[in-house]
Amino acid sequence: MTTTPPAKRRTHLSFNVLDMAAVSHNNYGLWRLPSNRKPHYTDLSYWIDHARAAERALFDSVFFADLIGVAAGYGGSNDVALREAMHVPNIDPVMILSAMAAATRHIGLGATVSTTYEPPFAHARRFSTLDHLTGGRVAWNIVTTYLPNADENYGVLPGQYAHDERYDLADEFMQVCYRLWEESWEENAVMRDRVNHIYTDPARVHRIDHQGRYFSCAGPHLCEPSPQRTPVIFQAGSSGRGKSFAGQHAEVIFVGGRTWEAVKANVADARAAVAAAGRRREDVRVISDSGFIVARTDAEARARLASYQELSSADGYLAHQSGAGLDLTRFSRETTQEEIISLGGPGAAHMSRYNYPAGTTVGEIMDRALLLDRNPFLSVGCAERVADQVEEWVETYDLDGFLCRQLETDATIRDIGDFLIPELARRGLHRGAYHGGTLREQILGTPRLADTHPGSRYRMKASNLAGETRA
Amino acid sequence: MTTTPPAKRRTHLSFNVLDMAAVSHNNYGLWRLPSNRKPHYTDLSYWIDHARAAERALFDSVFFADLIGVAAGYGGSNDVALREAMHVPNIDPVMILSAMAAATRHIGLGATVSTTYEPPFAHARRFSTLDHLTGGRVAWNIVTTYLPNADENYGVLPGQYAHDERYDLADEFMQVCYRLWEESWEENAVMRDRVNHIYTDPARVHRIDHQGRYFSCAGPHLCEPSPQRTPVIFQAGSSGRGKSFAGQHAEVIFVGGRTWEAVKANVADARAAVAAAGRRREDVRVISDSGFIVARTDAEARARLASYQELSSADGYLAHQSGAGLDLTRFSRETTQEEIISLGGPGAAHMSRYNYPAGTTVGEIMDRALLLDRNPFLSVGCAERVADQVEEWVETYDLDGFLCRQLETDATIRDIGDFLIPELARRGLHRGAYHGGTLREQILGTPRLADTHPGSRYRMKASNLAGETRA
Repeated sequence: MTTTPPAKRRTHLSFNVLDMAAVSHNNYGLWRLPSNRKPHYTDLSYWIDHARAAERALFDSVFFADLIGVAAGYGGSNDVALREAMHVPNIDPVMILSAMAAATRHIGLGATVSTTYEPPFAHARRFSTLDHLTGGRVAWNIVTTYLPNADENYGVLPGQYAHDERYDLADEFMQVCYRLWEESWEENAVMRDRVNHIYTDPARVHRIDHQGRYFSCAGPHLCEPSPQRTPVIFQAGSSGRGKSFAGQHAEVIFVGGRTWEAVKANVADARAAVAAAGRRREDVRVISDSGFIVARTDAEARARLASYQELSSADGYLAHQSGAGLDLTRFSRETTQEEIISLGGPGAAHMSRYNYPAGTTVGEIMDRALLLDRNPFLSVGCAERVADQVEEWVETYDLDGFLCRQLETDATIRDIGDFLIPELARRGLHRGAYHGGTLREQILGTPRLADTHPGSRYRMKASNLAGETRA
Repeated sequence: MTTTPPAKRRTHLSFNVLDMAAVSHNNYGLWRLPSNRKPHYTDLSYWIDHARAAERALFDSVFFADLIGVAAGYGGSNDVALREAMHVPNIDPVMILSAMAAATRHIGLGATVSTTYEPPFAHARRFSTLDHLTGGRVAWNIVTTYLPNADENYGVLPGQYAHDERYDLADEFMQVCYRLWEESWEENAVMRDRVNHIYTDPARVHRIDHQGRYFSCAGPHLCEPSPQRTPVIFQAGSSGRGKSFAGQHAEVIFVGGRTWEAVKANVADARAAVAAAGRRREDVRVISDSGFIVARTDAEARARLASYQELSSADGYLAHQSGAGLDLTRFSRETTQEEIISLGGPGAAHMSRYNYPAGTTVGEIMDRALLLDRNPFLSVGCAERVADQVEEWVETYDLDGFLCRQLETDATIRDIGDFLIPELARRGLHRGAYHGGTLREQILGTPRLADTHPGSRYRMKASNLAGETRA
């Protein structure tokens, strides 16, 4: 592999916790660990403790993946998914955020919401509400969802939206949201003037009157401006269209990849998409999916990895990979990924996103269906060893930070906080403390969307409009 | 007025707090009171204090009204609504509930959600999530929404749904929700069997495969069964179709009325609708919208009323009444309500729901647009005086409790808790303490939907199905 000199990057890495409000997410079988509190995911106290632990560890955010259907496919039924508690049962992570906010002061709170199934007006209101309640600490991870059961649950007909059309719909969804968040209420619309009996100046609140291909929305937005207005936008598009969408809208892009080369290519694609959208490198943080098992000593960390591997469920990983309708058991062990992709269909599209090395066979995929094999970034050891690896990865792969899978609650993030973060802070790679302010200030150093962000266009328009109206 | 002997009723009255996550709700102008914390409605600490105060006062629930559009109409624009902060700006109350749950142990937490604009699958998941997180303390107030700006915000075309059709849609929405909540997951589906590596028994989780006129939803539900499964159902239908809907679905019906006679008729209609739906009287609690200003002495309470009346805004009340598109200023002062109703249209439909005495004129309506005039239940005084009135009202109007408007945060509920509730407890009319359990147990004495409730049908079906499957 040739190592090109990395472009200039921020000194402070962004560490974020990846989890899902479900029993198992990317770590199948580990719910059986007696020390893992994950089966208590329906208890409010579980999530409050989680948020506090992550804040104690100085993470930038806790971040919820989400899935709004059962990923059937493997064996042709829901059976493995349900037995493994693979993403299901789950609960709606958005509902948990205000309780986590009340128990913390600094940490960002992010949730995944799809743009395909719900009206943008309702979504914009929910996230404005959460941005108020969290004091400007909310983030939204945008997904477009490509899961047959999700379509069935929301009444979307088969074939109603092809993969790329979901991004067209998402583009329009974003436009409506930006207009509600940035344009509808001018900065000084809320007066709270007790003497003259004016709470809001009606001249400074505007309808948006959006009439598009997919949505119609009049406004005005119902919420007065929240600290960040637009929540911090996370995105992880992996297709060509998805990468372009992320380049336009995302403020934090997270990448994965089956191989080191794939990760490197994905990071480069993300940076290129950002540039192609006319945005600056420093407007966007690119972080990688990762697993860190850190302990006092290398031996302790390796022992923990071994205990995880012992309980890990190959069935769960295979079912996860088969999620988009591709049942690997239908193929012989000798079938190559290229042969599967050549068959076309959503399963093949999903398959192609895994980026296996050329010629990988179904047999090899099944054999590698073990803890974390989907991503090369697994680091296991004492703080020094893991910090060395972090440094190397950041340089080699041009990364701004990590989205850390929670393998065991609360051990994973507690140990990252106790061992890894202080070591990185000593090396000047982590800020080592919260500096206050909103989540966007914490991650990107700026309170509102950058001027290069497409959402900022509407903010400008509102100011101009106001100027014209009252000129 | 003839007073018929009231039917046998529960000993313990249900007291609930009515509020809205907005600056002003049914109490226009009072945000200007220096002691009123309501302009802090976007702060999480405001709502946490509110929930704690209501729990300290031993209320059954805190209950959020909601409005998803601006009630324009008065003067033909949004101006009054915005100046008065009449319902707008607001935030989404559903987002606040988990934080309130974390700060309390017993009190119920209810929010209003419309059945007209969002997919039932998403709604069912949100409320299952909240029922888990609150430990079975969540309630849902069903509305169908008849507000032109809400339609515009969600892309519902003018005339797409007539008033009564919204209830057809609501009936189907309920059916989907009941099936997800009651039928999809059998009671013992979740096994958490660490030894045999089975979290959920797939044979006990069912798709619902709903295909209806308005919705299509496959399932299975994504959430494992929550403590109450179906949240406690509140409803306040006032039209004929609305009353019938409430009689079928509601577990708590709240009524209002412009006059004493109207309230009495509405209570009787509610009881009759419950009976017509084949449900028992004790399956449903009928409570009234009310205002209580209680203090140590009558003089203190009257002084507080006077301070409220001084700040009350007639403009706000008129704009509220004009909310559904009826601009009262279009009519001469001499126009009667019957003349307005005879014009037809949504504004007239709204007008007719106010139940003014026959012959009431626009001038009279305007003159009476003062604090609380929309409802006869305003009681002001020391604990003994107000408790006497409560006793009389309960007997005369056949009520099971009250939905108490919050006029000033936190004075209203603090004083009800300090003065009125202890007095009612001494008289055996209030339980005087929480007895634990879910909200449904607290209000209705039963953990799950009663067998007479339409939602329970699906629960039965699931059990039968399971029996068949495994016979």
